[in-house]
Amino acid sequence: MPEVDLPEVLDEVRAAFAAYEKALTGNDVATLEALFRDDARTLRYGATENLYGMDEIRAFRRGRSPAGLDRALEKTVITTYGRDAATACTLFRRDSAPGKIGRQTQTWVRFPEGWKVVAAHVSVIDEPA
Amino acid sequence: MPEVDLPEVLDEVRAAFAAYEKALTGNDVATLEALFRDDARTLRYGATENLYGMDEIRAFRRGRSPAGLDRALEKTVITTYGRDAATACTLFRRDSAPGKIGRQTQTWVRFPEGWKVVAAHVSVIDEPA
Repeated sequence: MPEVDLPEVLDEVRAAFAAYEKALTGNDVATLEALFRDDARTLRYGATENLYGMDEIRAFRRGRSPAGLDRALEKTVITTYGRDAATACTLFRRDSAPGKIGRQTQTWVRFPEGWKVVAAHVSVIDEPA
Repeated sequence: MPEVDLPEVLDEVRAAFAAYEKALTGNDVATLEALFRDDARTLRYGATENLYGMDEIRAFRRGRSPAGLDRALEKTVITTYGRDAATACTLFRRDSAPGKIGRQTQTWVRFPEGWKVVAAHVSVIDEPA
């Protein structure tokens, strides 16, 4: 039975999640890449694209416009399962997209080199009524 | 270091994923509910709704129309990390939504009572060019 939300594990994943968010809004591509597992099985479904494997993810990051990435997070929930796995889920809003709500989910796994995202999904929908 | 894709673990998660898909397209609500972890931290971002906790997820499932749930999966990737954690990611299409592509990601965790989804995200976008 994996122990859920062990405080020291939660602290680690919260720190990794915060580093990712800072890198995202700052378009720090090297850090964004380093926080994803470099593997063909790593996967990212983005707002308008479906990226399979770290090669596709890298190509997308490097070609992305750095404009308008700033965002405000809401209802973020980070939960750890055992010592090596976690989920990080959050809503987000951008001033440039009124009436829309973004959703981001990530699965994080601990490897010898640290916590890495192995699967991520980002989507934007109309604000639910 | 979690061992990735141990064959016997992969077989278990594939079976759980297949059971979920069968229950989804058949609108077998009891099975769908049983395959999610019954916990306030379980989360599901759906095509048009953001559900926090199993109570919200249950209310949504029970109020859902059973019409038009059939779908075809594409590019499904199930990956296991150690013996207790896995991701299941897939694209899907519905005949009722030409030109659209669905994306579903799930994080599965093994508990004493079996494998359960702890976080899920479903979204539908225009087919990428």
